[in-house]
Amino acid sequence: MDLPELRIRLPQWLLDQLGGAWEPLPSAEAQMRFVIALARENIRQGSGGPFAAAVFDPQGNLVAPGLNIVTSSRCSIMHAEMLALALAQQRLGSHDLSDGGRRHLTLVASAEPCAMCLGAIPWSGVARLVVGARDEDVRAIGFDEGAKPEHWSAALASRGIEVERDLLRAEAIAVLRAYSEAGGAIY
Amino acid sequence: MDLPELRIRLPQWLLDQLGGAWEPLPSAEAQMRFVIALARENIRQGSGGPFAAAVFDPQGNLVAPGLNIVTSSRCSIMHAEMLALALAQQRLGSHDLSDGGRRHLTLVASAEPCAMCLGAIPWSGVARLVVGARDEDVRAIGFDEGAKPEHWSAALASRGIEVERDLLRAEAIAVLRAYSEAGGAIY
Repeated sequence: MDLPELRIRLPQWLLDQLGGAWEPLPSAEAQMRFVIALARENIRQGSGGPFAAAVFDPQGNLVAPGLNIVTSSRCSIMHAEMLALALAQQRLGSHDLSDGGRRHLTLVASAEPCAMCLGAIPWSGVARLVVGARDEDVRAIGFDEGAKPEHWSAALASRGIEVERDLLRAEAIAVLRAYSEAGGAIY
Repeated sequence: MDLPELRIRLPQWLLDQLGGAWEPLPSAEAQMRFVIALARENIRQGSGGPFAAAVFDPQGNLVAPGLNIVTSSRCSIMHAEMLALALAQQRLGSHDLSDGGRRHLTLVASAEPCAMCLGAIPWSGVARLVVGARDEDVRAIGFDEGAKPEHWSAALASRGIEVERDLLRAEAIAVLRAYSEAGGAIY
């Protein structure tokens, strides 16, 4: 039988946008603004759902961005957080972003993770999660978040992963609503 | 900045093994034997952890196999179930393996899914999950399964995903133990 490989590329518009030099974004708020702008552009370009994420180092350098490209990549695991984590690992050459506890990276996501992405976070080695829109904001436009354990942010904290919620929540919700009002596919 | 693509290949030994014609495996037990043999070979070949999975159609044709290749692919999301689901979607050309409810595929996994893989299953479109070793068997050799909701199999059932547990559990446990006794990496 003929087995394919799994080959996932970021959309060309994002590669073009990030082609030049990177100016560090030291604050979590600036990082979230960048991520929300990616989610908005992902809708505008028609490359996927209203979700984006990115992994940053402590100096505010972008390690890797991610977008929800489930439909365009024909791959249900290609949520923004998953792609950002996987690309960050490819760039750093390890499945463990913490490098055995020596590296402290942050995953910034425009919305709270679904059950799959939540489960992926402890395996990735990120030290911190920063999220914009809440779970209920995502469900309000019709997306399913899956069966998550109660008190999920406390569960991450107990594993040493710091969680910051509601950062620029209103701006993140505006992107979700814009997608919904434009009749974007819900899956 | 220079962004990589995500490019995941199955190990060459598996591509070689599956290079010829495929003889259908109509029973769940035969499918599980195939999957457990893949997990055993993954250890022997040094290509990853003691976990394998595969997606089958109702006639017992293999749609796609998966192996845990976290360390060799340098990607923490590359659990066996995730790779099998993603490759099945690439082969069928859609992020929805159910094709809107018209297709009934089964994911067979040598062990119960971790929190991430459990979260991924409803998004994939598989209609049925068959597992060998239990969550506690996996934890017994030191792997972390993550924070899963209680009654996870009932939660899948409530979404219309049938779950069969404990199929060839003893054989599946034997592979986990062999890996542990050989001093395989736990991550």
